[in-house]
Amino acid sequence: MSTVAALRAVAAALVVGVSSLSPLREAVSETTDTPTVDPAALARIRDAAMSSDWAWRHLARLTDEIGPRLSGSPQLALAVTEVAEAMRQLGARVTLQPAKVPHWVRGDAQAQLVDYPGRPAGIAQRLALTALGGSAATPEKGLTARVIVVHDMTELTARAGLVRGNIVLFDSRFDQRLADNGDAGDAYSQAGRYRFNGASAAAKLGAAGALVRSIGGANFRLPHTGVTLFKEGQTPIPAAALAAEDADLVTRLAESGPVTLTLLLTPKTLPDADSDNVIADWPGREKPDEYVIVSGHLDSWDLATGATDDGVGVIGAAAVIEILKELDLHPRRSVRFIGWTNEENGGRGSKAYFASVAQALDTQCAAIESDDGAGRSIGIAAAVPKEWLPALRPVQEALSPIGATGLLRRDGEVGADINPLQQAGVPGFAPWVDARHYFDYHHTAADTLDKVDPQNLKSQVATLAVLAYFLAELPEPLPRFKTSD
Amino acid sequence: MSTVAALRAVAAALVVGVSSLSPLREAVSETTDTPTVDPAALARIRDAAMSSDWAWRHLARLTDEIGPRLSGSPQLALAVTEVAEAMRQLGARVTLQPAKVPHWVRGDAQAQLVDYPGRPAGIAQRLALTALGGSAATPEKGLTARVIVVHDMTELTARAGLVRGNIVLFDSRFDQRLADNGDAGDAYSQAGRYRFNGASAAAKLGAAGALVRSIGGANFRLPHTGVTLFKEGQTPIPAAALAAEDADLVTRLAESGPVTLTLLLTPKTLPDADSDNVIADWPGREKPDEYVIVSGHLDSWDLATGATDDGVGVIGAAAVIEILKELDLHPRRSVRFIGWTNEENGGRGSKAYFASVAQALDTQCAAIESDDGAGRSIGIAAAVPKEWLPALRPVQEALSPIGATGLLRRDGEVGADINPLQQAGVPGFAPWVDARHYFDYHHTAADTLDKVDPQNLKSQVATLAVLAYFLAELPEPLPRFKTSD
Repeated sequence: MSTVAALRAVAAALVVGVSSLSPLREAVSETTDTPTVDPAALARIRDAAMSSDWAWRHLARLTDEIGPRLSGSPQLALAVTEVAEAMRQLGARVTLQPAKVPHWVRGDAQAQLVDYPGRPAGIAQRLALTALGGSAATPEKGLTARVIVVHDMTELTARAGLVRGNIVLFDSRFDQRLADNGDAGDAYSQAGRYRFNGASAAAKLGAAGALVRSIGGANFRLPHTGVTLFKEGQTPIPAAALAAEDADLVTRLAESGPVTLTLLLTPKTLPDADSDNVIADWPGREKPDEYVIVSGHLDSWDLATGATDDGVGVIGAAAVIEILKELDLHPRRSVRFIGWTNEENGGRGSKAYFASVAQALDTQCAAIESDDGAGRSIGIAAAVPKEWLPALRPVQEALSPIGATGLLRRDGEVGADINPLQQAGVPGFAPWVDARHYFDYHHTAADTLDKVDPQNLKSQVATLAVLAYFLAELPEPLPRFKTSD
Repeated sequence: MSTVAALRAVAAALVVGVSSLSPLREAVSETTDTPTVDPAALARIRDAAMSSDWAWRHLARLTDEIGPRLSGSPQLALAVTEVAEAMRQLGARVTLQPAKVPHWVRGDAQAQLVDYPGRPAGIAQRLALTALGGSAATPEKGLTARVIVVHDMTELTARAGLVRGNIVLFDSRFDQRLADNGDAGDAYSQAGRYRFNGASAAAKLGAAGALVRSIGGANFRLPHTGVTLFKEGQTPIPAAALAAEDADLVTRLAESGPVTLTLLLTPKTLPDADSDNVIADWPGREKPDEYVIVSGHLDSWDLATGATDDGVGVIGAAAVIEILKELDLHPRRSVRFIGWTNEENGGRGSKAYFASVAQALDTQCAAIESDDGAGRSIGIAAAVPKEWLPALRPVQEALSPIGATGLLRRDGEVGADINPLQQAGVPGFAPWVDARHYFDYHHTAADTLDKVDPQNLKSQVATLAVLAYFLAELPEPLPRFKTSD
């Protein structure tokens, strides 16, 4: 079937005709077709999710008791073992899918401004910072060099002649206004390019080290870590994130004259470690070899317990299996929970999974990833053509009583781990959550369990479970759809 | 003159009779007396304060360039020297008043939960914490002991039998609702008793160490330091503040069974160091030997640059002299700026000053201390009998255009350094500032210059300058008034 034909078939088959309270139904055309997925089943799923504390208990276990889960750590290995066991206990068919993951260990991070305009003799100012994942170590006694402050890549190019042997600071501000007004992810991507690519760009110009302003909206002197990427064959340089306040300080001082900094970073890159994706299949009643993926990532950064990134996501996705088990519901296709390994600094879990299904992509009907923090569910984000959106109305209607009727169309990636699938044409989905304050805590020492409201978690589980069941129950799978990026 | 007679004289002399926009004037009786302090002078002072950037420039110097100023540090010595020099440059008569100050040095702080209910084998949870000022060091390899969680002193007493050899955690929550609804200082005092006295109470019962939940309203995993007090002759024990999140974690785990913690603190208590109060007199034109004090403290904690505690206060008070110099105004009495040393962990500056004036208290007409953070000025806090409040109306009227007409009567201490003077009958005043979020940052690594809005600082300088001039210009000094605590 061609994409166009399939699209027509889906559009005809899926739009709902029953009356509902959803304000969104007014925005799209209606038909009188009977629903193709039983609304009563969706309602039961929602209600079961809103009254289960399974996710909360497992999230507390994963965070408060197991702890930070950076790739290569014993805590990540424990998370793999325990989540797999929890899935087995629910009766799912569990596979551990091996992946070699980077094993980077943070070590210590210190920095002092040892010279600056107006510095009183003998005084140095201590900065708050943390190494970026993938950073090289400095010499044992630290690296002392001038700081070259730039605000964007254009300014880096303009000041390229000053970079060699010095430390570049990328002082690009997180746009909280953008985050507040609808797309925190866009605000993250915008500021994130300097964390992702700044050190590499600086290294290319001969920089001895690189610093980035932490990405986030709050002002509590928290450094935000995250991965920095070097090109194939490029030698990594020391790279760290300054707290926003410290980036402000360096920038202010540098406006009056040269600023010299001593940077000490002691990370280590060890040989790759063994890890696994946890794959747990809840068999479909008609087409058990066709899969709808619902997923989150097991690994986290090491500064905190990763409750919001991505404890909420991975446990929320796992809880979908628990809801289906509780209700003894088996949709037409299998629902496949995946707990991804190594999302944060390598994506090796994602790559291993894609490689394993690349020759059988027709079996991968849709993929959901939950990795946008612990806010309440607003609804669904869908990387599908806009003509398909009305087909999702039964999901919106089922989620209407919990206020999660939103439907956000995305052009591209909705989750890092499912992105290879999306690129290959598998429709991608995510819960759409209130992420306005996600980046206050993201990748910091403050990403802890208290940041999760149990009611928000339930709303996310309800969204994931209703959506996963719906997609797995459709009479025909969604057609392929290539995202634009 | 008896207090009663003096009070009558003041009440008759000071209430204003001119019309004004102040909404507060409706609340008190009026007379038709001519004003005793020229309203035009007060207005000029206000306007000069609102258009001067002297305070901002000196605050940036004190914080961004000099840095944290804990007693005994070279930075505090620099602050003394530089603020004194700035005062000399304004033409004030400067005295350095020596005080021996405690010299406590923080060192390192680490803690791990090494056993707890549900702990996976081999896993330990790292906690965020910082030593309290006055803490003893743990043994070099750390102190490993069970944590006894209590929420108040009653519970400590009830569990006294469990304390010996263990570590007591005082998990008392900061009441942000109280802070939001009017009195952040009361919220601080309430939670603060455990930081001030908890370690001593635990030590008395044989505790090996003490932890307190950090005092503050934000949730960014910031430990809040501050002094803890041991009784005369009591041997200090190791004492630290956990971040609120970590107090929550320990408390939650301890609800299910014993929690064991390894605590490593390496503070040192060195011999007392030399420091000084900076006293700068702006001579009165009629009674130069009578003084109205306007003050803040030069020292800060060491985790940050102390921009709000108390950079804003001490520089704001110093700026009063700059405004009087700029306007070439000399009120009847002298205005005495004091930059106190060692407010944070000893009050030695306060004690030295009080000892120096104890035999001449009649010369100390009134005392203002500014130490409530960097919020905008709401008006004035006054520890005076309520019958005196109408006398302050000219100050309210002068501050009306900047919205600082508030008048808060306090029963007791309005500033730690001026409290001995208050106790001896000297009327005490403070700017009344919006402190709802002061304790988000108080005594943390995040107390940095960016937390200060330059406009708020100006509003505080205006309040201090108008009030100080007014009190120094009154035809008769305010009578003595003993506060209730």
